[in-house]
Amino acid sequence: MSDNSNKALTVLGLGDMGSALARSWVAAGYTVTVWNRSARQAPDAVSIAATAAEAVAANTLVVVCLLDDASVRVTLDGIDLTGRDVVNLTTSTPAEARSLSDWITARGGSFLDGGIMAVPSMIGAADSGAYVFYSGSAQMHKTHADVLAVPAGLTYVGTDAGFAALYDIALLSAMWGMFAGATHAFALTVGENISPVEFAPLMVAYQQAMAGYAYGTAAQLASGDYTEGVESNLAMMSTTNATLRRTAAEQGVSTALLEPFMTLMERRVAEGGGNESTTGVVELLRR
Amino acid sequence: MSDNSNKALTVLGLGDMGSALARSWVAAGYTVTVWNRSARQAPDAVSIAATAAEAVAANTLVVVCLLDDASVRVTLDGIDLTGRDVVNLTTSTPAEARSLSDWITARGGSFLDGGIMAVPSMIGAADSGAYVFYSGSAQMHKTHADVLAVPAGLTYVGTDAGFAALYDIALLSAMWGMFAGATHAFALTVGENISPVEFAPLMVAYQQAMAGYAYGTAAQLASGDYTEGVESNLAMMSTTNATLRRTAAEQGVSTALLEPFMTLMERRVAEGGGNESTTGVVELLRR
Repeated sequence: MSDNSNKALTVLGLGDMGSALARSWVAAGYTVTVWNRSARQAPDAVSIAATAAEAVAANTLVVVCLLDDASVRVTLDGIDLTGRDVVNLTTSTPAEARSLSDWITARGGSFLDGGIMAVPSMIGAADSGAYVFYSGSAQMHKTHADVLAVPAGLTYVGTDAGFAALYDIALLSAMWGMFAGATHAFALTVGENISPVEFAPLMVAYQQAMAGYAYGTAAQLASGDYTEGVESNLAMMSTTNATLRRTAAEQGVSTALLEPFMTLMERRVAEGGGNESTTGVVELLRR
Repeated sequence: MSDNSNKALTVLGLGDMGSALARSWVAAGYTVTVWNRSARQAPDAVSIAATAAEAVAANTLVVVCLLDDASVRVTLDGIDLTGRDVVNLTTSTPAEARSLSDWITARGGSFLDGGIMAVPSMIGAADSGAYVFYSGSAQMHKTHADVLAVPAGLTYVGTDAGFAALYDIALLSAMWGMFAGATHAFALTVGENISPVEFAPLMVAYQQAMAGYAYGTAAQLASGDYTEGVESNLAMMSTTNATLRRTAAEQGVSTALLEPFMTLMERRVAEGGGNESTTGVVELLRR
């Protein structure tokens, strides 16, 4: 019942992620043609093309997962992209993705950018929670939904080719902040007779419970009223910073990771935002 | 069947939190004697004591919820605490709680410190998720478990009177970091045609999914091997910092909130921790 002509694609790049992607498609019965800049152990059962041009010529659907934006340009430069559907899963910025989209489409290709929210071991694994933000060609997203769903879930975020990268980096930023907070919390407690293994579940549950605070921030950003629905306001929240700083000093822990957030909370209060939530800090970052 | 002699307690302090606590006990049928430094609207159906000494004399169980540690000292100074079970829910540092414990017990009282993980509206509300970290007298925790369970859940974390405050501030720190990350993420996206209300659920789900990263950190801190179970190592993780910084620059957003964490990741890699997870950053904070 399967149409083999639709079950074939090309993967450019065999780093950890490119290899994981290729393996997931092979496992799902796809014919996969691969190319890598340097000689590298290829996954089993793939066709190895001698050149990137040969790999691109082999299939309509071309998935690119290289080191960076510059690598993509160098690799595709001079290759005929007429009628090619290029899916770029290379880490890039929104502006790089938009520019690449223009470059690809000017040369006859279609373009869909992706931001992978997963590590390689999650690719192709059932129920891993892995997904990819896609943005760019709506037609490509529709046409290739089945094949793109093999390695990870799809979350399409619009025709702006830069949005996938923007969502990706925004969520990475949210994660870095969360990890920074957890790092400070561990630093406070490790010097005491507190098992990190017993402490962690309490912290994880608390972060998970309080993550929903962002819904209030979103509603306030949408309405423009940063006092909407506020119970514990910024003035009250920022008074606890003194206790946080004294505790860190007692425990011999630097507040470096949290100082910028506390300082901006206090600046916003000083500027008259004491009745608001923390939403005004978003504005301070954009000045 | 109820024993009224056990259903009575004193609350010192009628700020937003003290009032919420008193109301929850009144609602549960307790006889509540209150005192506040200044004249203040008291919750219905409480007995108002003219002095703190009178309030303390009224009941064995005395819950203190004042402005800060100094307020507690000033309020209790000179009052007979013999046989009194003092539960301190005033925000304080671990060292302040330990010192207060010594001060109270030297004067004949018993001491249990608490750190409230809730805002006042969650107090006494069923299924609010609110709870209080308690540490100090195990006997007090056992004797008063029923009454203390009225306003919020109990999580007892040991006989060290400083641990409740330490856990409280550690979780606050973890939350501040998470909020800082979310703030940066919102700042990246608000200038674009992206609805914060549609963006928020994606970010909340991602933070909730990735919070469990802390289990790995805890296991590594326990074993001392920061490379244990690492897939995406610190060298790889920190390479994405460049994309994060370029994206922020493109979007006109300061990286102030995330710069310290990224810098410490990079410092740890430079010092030879590239094969580790982020756990080594805990050590950098303690130098």
